[in-house]
Amino acid sequence: MMTQTIHILNGPNLNLLGKRQPEIYGRDTLDDVARDCAAVGAEFGLETRLLQSNWEGQIVDWIHEARETAAGIIINPAALTHTSVAVLDALNTFDGPVIEVHISQVHKREAFRHHSFVSHRADAVMAGFGIHGYALAMRHMGRLLR
Amino acid sequence: MMTQTIHILNGPNLNLLGKRQPEIYGRDTLDDVARDCAAVGAEFGLETRLLQSNWEGQIVDWIHEARETAAGIIINPAALTHTSVAVLDALNTFDGPVIEVHISQVHKREAFRHHSFVSHRADAVMAGFGIHGYALAMRHMGRLLR
Amino acid sequence: MMTQTIHILNGPNLNLLGKRQPEIYGRDTLDDVARDCAAVGAEFGLETRLLQSNWEGQIVDWIHEARETAAGIIINPAALTHTSVAVLDALNTFDGPVIEVHISQVHKREAFRHHSFVSHRADAVMAGFGIHGYALAMRHMGRLLR
Amino acid sequence: MMTQTIHILNGPNLNLLGKRQPEIYGRDTLDDVARDCAAVGAEFGLETRLLQSNWEGQIVDWIHEARETAAGIIINPAALTHTSVAVLDALNTFDGPVIEVHISQVHKREAFRHHSFVSHRADAVMAGFGIHGYALAMRHMGRLLR
Amino acid sequence: MMTQTIHILNGPNLNLLGKRQPEIYGRDTLDDVARDCAAVGAEFGLETRLLQSNWEGQIVDWIHEARETAAGIIINPAALTHTSVAVLDALNTFDGPVIEVHISQVHKREAFRHHSFVSHRADAVMAGFGIHGYALAMRHMGRLLR
Amino acid sequence: MMTQTIHILNGPNLNLLGKRQPEIYGRDTLDDVARDCAAVGAEFGLETRLLQSNWEGQIVDWIHEARETAAGIIINPAALTHTSVAVLDALNTFDGPVIEVHISQVHKREAFRHHSFVSHRADAVMAGFGIHGYALAMRHMGRLLR
Amino acid sequence: MMTQTIHILNGPNLNLLGKRQPEIYGRDTLDDVARDCAAVGAEFGLETRLLQSNWEGQIVDWIHEARETAAGIIINPAALTHTSVAVLDALNTFDGPVIEVHISQVHKREAFRHHSFVSHRADAVMAGFGIHGYALAMRHMGRLLR
Amino acid sequence: MMTQTIHILNGPNLNLLGKRQPEIYGRDTLDDVARDCAAVGAEFGLETRLLQSNWEGQIVDWIHEARETAAGIIINPAALTHTSVAVLDALNTFDGPVIEVHISQVHKREAFRHHSFVSHRADAVMAGFGIHGYALAMRHMGRLLR
Amino acid sequence: MMTQTIHILNGPNLNLLGKRQPEIYGRDTLDDVARDCAAVGAEFGLETRLLQSNWEGQIVDWIHEARETAAGIIINPAALTHTSVAVLDALNTFDGPVIEVHISQVHKREAFRHHSFVSHRADAVMAGFGIHGYALAMRHMGRLLR
Amino acid sequence: MMTQTIHILNGPNLNLLGKRQPEIYGRDTLDDVARDCAAVGAEFGLETRLLQSNWEGQIVDWIHEARETAAGIIINPAALTHTSVAVLDALNTFDGPVIEVHISQVHKREAFRHHSFVSHRADAVMAGFGIHGYALAMRHMGRLLR
Amino acid sequence: MMTQTIHILNGPNLNLLGKRQPEIYGRDTLDDVARDCAAVGAEFGLETRLLQSNWEGQIVDWIHEARETAAGIIINPAALTHTSVAVLDALNTFDGPVIEVHISQVHKREAFRHHSFVSHRADAVMAGFGIHGYALAMRHMGRLLR
Amino acid sequence: MMTQTIHILNGPNLNLLGKRQPEIYGRDTLDDVARDCAAVGAEFGLETRLLQSNWEGQIVDWIHEARETAAGIIINPAALTHTSVAVLDALNTFDGPVIEVHISQVHKREAFRHHSFVSHRADAVMAGFGIHGYALAMRHMGRLLR
Repeated sequence: MMTQTIHILNGPNLNLLGKRQPEIYGRDTLDDVARDCAAVGAEFGLETRLLQSNWEGQIVDWIHEARETAAGIIINPAALTHTSVAVLDALNTFDGPVIEVHISQVHKREAFRHHSFVSHRADAVMAGFGIHGYALAMRHMGRLLR
Repeated sequence: MMTQTIHILNGPNLNLLGKRQPEIYGRDTLDDVARDCAAVGAEFGLETRLLQSNWEGQIVDWIHEARETAAGIIINPAALTHTSVAVLDALNTFDGPVIEVHISQVHKREAFRHHSFVSHRADAVMAGFGIHGYALAMRHMGRLLR
Repeated sequence: MMTQTIHILNGPNLNLLGKRQPEIYGRDTLDDVARDCAAVGAEFGLETRLLQSNWEGQIVDWIHEARETAAGIIINPAALTHTSVAVLDALNTFDGPVIEVHISQVHKREAFRHHSFVSHRADAVMAGFGIHGYALAMRHMGRLLR
Repeated sequence: MMTQTIHILNGPNLNLLGKRQPEIYGRDTLDDVARDCAAVGAEFGLETRLLQSNWEGQIVDWIHEARETAAGIIINPAALTHTSVAVLDALNTFDGPVIEVHISQVHKREAFRHHSFVSHRADAVMAGFGIHGYALAMRHMGRLLR
Repeated sequence: MMTQTIHILNGPNLNLLGKRQPEIYGRDTLDDVARDCAAVGAEFGLETRLLQSNWEGQIVDWIHEARETAAGIIINPAALTHTSVAVLDALNTFDGPVIEVHISQVHKREAFRHHSFVSHRADAVMAGFGIHGYALAMRHMGRLLR
Repeated sequence: MMTQTIHILNGPNLNLLGKRQPEIYGRDTLDDVARDCAAVGAEFGLETRLLQSNWEGQIVDWIHEARETAAGIIINPAALTHTSVAVLDALNTFDGPVIEVHISQVHKREAFRHHSFVSHRADAVMAGFGIHGYALAMRHMGRLLR
Repeated sequence: MMTQTIHILNGPNLNLLGKRQPEIYGRDTLDDVARDCAAVGAEFGLETRLLQSNWEGQIVDWIHEARETAAGIIINPAALTHTSVAVLDALNTFDGPVIEVHISQVHKREAFRHHSFVSHRADAVMAGFGIHGYALAMRHMGRLLR
Repeated sequence: MMTQTIHILNGPNLNLLGKRQPEIYGRDTLDDVARDCAAVGAEFGLETRLLQSNWEGQIVDWIHEARETAAGIIINPAALTHTSVAVLDALNTFDGPVIEVHISQVHKREAFRHHSFVSHRADAVMAGFGIHGYALAMRHMGRLLR
Repeated sequence: MMTQTIHILNGPNLNLLGKRQPEIYGRDTLDDVARDCAAVGAEFGLETRLLQSNWEGQIVDWIHEARETAAGIIINPAALTHTSVAVLDALNTFDGPVIEVHISQVHKREAFRHHSFVSHRADAVMAGFGIHGYALAMRHMGRLLR
Repeated sequence: MMTQTIHILNGPNLNLLGKRQPEIYGRDTLDDVARDCAAVGAEFGLETRLLQSNWEGQIVDWIHEARETAAGIIINPAALTHTSVAVLDALNTFDGPVIEVHISQVHKREAFRHHSFVSHRADAVMAGFGIHGYALAMRHMGRLLR
Repeated sequence: MMTQTIHILNGPNLNLLGKRQPEIYGRDTLDDVARDCAAVGAEFGLETRLLQSNWEGQIVDWIHEARETAAGIIINPAALTHTSVAVLDALNTFDGPVIEVHISQVHKREAFRHHSFVSHRADAVMAGFGIHGYALAMRHMGRLLR
Repeated sequence: MMTQTIHILNGPNLNLLGKRQPEIYGRDTLDDVARDCAAVGAEFGLETRLLQSNWEGQIVDWIHEARETAAGIIINPAALTHTSVAVLDALNTFDGPVIEVHISQVHKREAFRHHSFVSHRADAVMAGFGIHGYALAMRHMGRLLR
């Protein structure tokens, strides 16, 4: 049986993770996220592929690729959470589990951050767990895909 | 007299047309759309150029190109319908007829799909005709540009 | 096999089509619409029956009749679009295809013209094609009923 | 002492009761309603007169007649529930008890069915009792007019 | 020069004027209104024609007739004020002056009586003048048509 | 065959029924309600159990008990109608018929009384029948459970 | 018997009447209004006193004075219509008839001009009659105070 | 050093977990939740205390107790999520970490389930992870309290 | 003449008064409140009875008791202010004066704290006076009951 | 040590206090208020200065003066409560305590009286205490400035 | 050719500029503004006249004067921005350029400061430039009037 | 000391500046803007770098670059103003001053152009100054960075 891969997609500005507004997002970087996810993935026999883009079109393209190559998607849509129907529609074409992750507790921030288009599709959502959220999401993926 | 060209622009996720959610969008692909439009265009002496992108910036660029090379625009903005002022503003710079096409009957779907920024500019709008809508739009273009 | 008939129902004030506000509705009359629809119908072996009333109750009665005698309904509900649940409920009792046609591009007019009760039922909707919209709707009927 | 009469008024599309959407409205017809109401009326010494129209103007006219000839009104305004101030204003001119009946449980259906103009006047309202609701309303009339 | 005629159209339930809710509408009847309007009309050399219907379709038809035979329209749309786009659209086809009259001061009543579709077209609006409002409207017609 | 029982649950402040605001709720007490319901129940071979609490948690607990011991629930949630998702969720766990009863015509009272969480689940709803409403609801239960 | 006086109060910017935006307000001035009102007043044995201020506080003071010296108030609150609870509260202390006059048809202008605080108190309201509205209001005052 | 305890509080109807609506909530019970949490707690040297009540007051009391005896709170407020300011205010008096857990993905359910009062206070929120969510929350507690 | 008693009811979380969030609520406890109220009561010959509960049902029960034993109610409904129709309905059954007290200035806090159900009934409301508000409310009770 | 002064500012129409609408505002006048406040002030060694204006600009000017000469402000903004950002901004420049007083219980009156701009700044707010509210506010001032 | 004058109008509380809330408005005074504007005016051959009032009526009067004596208006309406239709209407009577200046970045402050009536008329708007904004506005005036 | 650089970022469709809708945007091009800004920059010893893209991702990337290389950002986000949280979030990572410029007076255009996500971050905002706005913004940058 082939090893399954989880795509971990990250939206705009997350390339700066750990470099900006540490009071909101903490000091860890996406590299730390990738390492943590790979570690949890290894426990469950899952490969991981972490990607980031500031371009909505790129995120959509990657979700299309995931239709062929991924067993599940963990997505932190960042700003696109609140504005992108395109990402939602792309996720609607994906059959595996989708977990939406937010590093900060978005419901305690500005009102426009309380609505998520991605939540119309996501099987599970989490916010406020810091970068630990990614690892927890991986752990849930492991359980779902067992 | 030079042959006129109609640009047929398609927004995010329409590259998957015929490959996803057939209960909503049917089983025909964009190639079928291109062929149908070309056939109707031939009746009216119109060339057609069908383009698709998941990237809003690309759609905007193509509309700018259309200012130089197209007599009319048929656009299925897909997800951008509801979120893109940039596409609306680009269309506002175009002088020829603009027809907005939706494959599914969007008014029977989620509430956020009921508002269209593009409709602020489009001369005509249609929804729920399946891919046949493109051919009907071409037929109307033919009549308008006669 | 019996010839199928399409009912083409028209709501309030459309008897004045071609006689009022030509900058919005053009100069063609309902007779022109009837002639165009019959012509397209002939291509597809469909009869057509065009009716108009300023009375909501009459429109409802005609839809009830259509349950017995029509294969499809093309309806331009005009003002009733925005105010009549009775017309919607009547259409909900009809099993064949329903196409909603608006001559002008209603989404560019007053806000109260942006909502349609009829769209809760219609299989397809079009606006802004002038009276040509009726003929295009007939063409779609032809395809649906083939 | 003269026998009192209860008018049982029915709005648009209720002539199709039992013939359409049985999953919402059941299979009984207005004739069944008339028979049930007459039976309950007989228990209380009340005559009944059941009327139906798809025309709002007719309903208003009948309410005006009821001012002269009816002791109470049971009304299922159907679609007019949500759209007719004229029916409300007519009922405001009637002095006896008014009971508003809906066959289906309207509060579980589309949002636009949750508001009733008639409820601004009705002394009592019921929804979701199927056609049995009419008989229960008659029973309440009997008690009110004793 | 031909004598000009003013049509004075009255919507649902106004046939009961003077017979219902005198605390809101007073004790005068439509006959009193007709007599008062004729009297003022005579001062200005204007004929008057007063009509009333509980049927929206009838009001629309009468407005269409007015296109041929009336120099101005005074309309008390009653309940249709708040619900009829059909009446608004009919008035939009009329070229002469249109005055909207309400007997009661509608802005002090229920919230749904605060919006008027007819006001989107009316050249002048008045409310709360009792039946005297009709005579004042006639006087304004006289001045406008001088 | 075992006798079936109907639970008649009453929310906050209904213990004061007949003792407070008789202009809204009348002068009958819950004991009268219990007696009337038992009488109608006897006609249909149904037991009745009437309960009242001012404590939302108690109402929820009783609904859980009803899962084991009741064939149907008649509930007058009183103030909880408008505020309790807990009662709604409890009712969602109950499989038999649920009828929602309001003594007064709530739609003629303050705006916050127009929305009912319980109506998201109730099979039928009635308001404004005074305490007679309970007996009518019992009669409907009898018919549903026959 | 003492002659009664009508106060004709005018809000901000009306001192420019006839000097600004004639396409909205016409070319007549407040002097014309004063002369017309005096003429109608004479017919009914009424004195008139026309005042104008750009200062809300002044308008409030004048209404207080009117409590002692005026039999009725005709008020064109202009901009204060939409913003001044102080003027409303002042009018609430006045016992005689109050007529609200707007020169233009405010319901066809910006949305913020559709709500009037003064209409919460005014016995009658008119809009769109040009400066003729003042004279008509005087005529109504004459009838009310007879 | 004393062992730290995590309180795992559960709101209304969760006593039925595994016994009702398994398509939404799954088939596991609160006992399973307790066992899973204890197991994760053991990994991190944390005690756990799982409590459930259908009574809002009880939940508030338990949060007050937690002020003395708990290092952190995991709470699934169930229906109280959307309606209880009392629970929010109680949590505002607690100094340790608070994690809000929902078994189902509430953002895909009815609109009234999209707002959470508890999220105004919770440090982290998760929804749609089934009962696995509790264990993941425990794992995060372990990390936070290390 | 019998001594009159004032009930001073306190809602959820007020048992922690003086122990939590002193920046909002200060450092005084409910015992201080009881002592202050008793002192003012003594000036006016009034007994006082101070109660607190985190359970809405208990507050409702106490209000019912107050119907028999209290001359007036001072209530700080705390969180229930914004969510409890049950408390409002209970207060509606009480005939004496009701004063609503909030320790903090609620209008400067979160938006959901700006609406009070209790204010629909309370004769007077105060916020932001700290615990001194209770004593001022007692002083007003004294004046009202003199 | 210098005696401190409290400014007691009163907005539009309060000069008529005791002379208008006694069912809402009672029969006491501003002179009674001044006397009561002075009496309470004497208890606490505070001077009082009571002012009233119907002119918003005057109220703003007086607040500016208060910056130099007052230790605290008691303000009944009357109609300006709901409409004046200028008064709010003026109060924002004042450093001492500000108490907002309303004679009537504004939350039981028209909806537009439920919002207060002044409450964005006021340290404490009271409504419904009649003119006694001023004295209670003085008593609180006394305590705050001790 | 006559020298042109620019009126620089300032609304309520701006007399305190530099004396209050320096964290929002800075430490410069209106005198500094006057000096800066005069300096820029000199570059362009423009006179300047700076005025301030806390009275809306005064601002309106000054705008009327500007109709005779000013070539352009720079206005910082302060609190009147959000509440004064009178100022808007006055500016609508002015034919020259109007520039709206806010010292602070109002869009980052309370929601009620986000709407400006004056912006319905202003040719240009600026916010957040501190008192430097006035000088920049003068510079733009210079360019417009060249 | 190193020369500081100001990045002047321009959003979608601004490449057409001067080529489209001159009645809204004027006839100057981005080259004119670049030249004007450079000229003002020279006065203050500032370099300028003008960039334009129709692609939101590109704008975000450029803002990230600006973190390293720019002392301040002048941004005309065009259509992205109203739709892009990504641009807002990117600007939130930038520490220097940010000025938001709109060529047209957006508050006089469609309602959806009245809200700006960028204004949540911008230190200053201007609209309606034509391309002169950029130069004024540069002048302000010069002052801020002095």
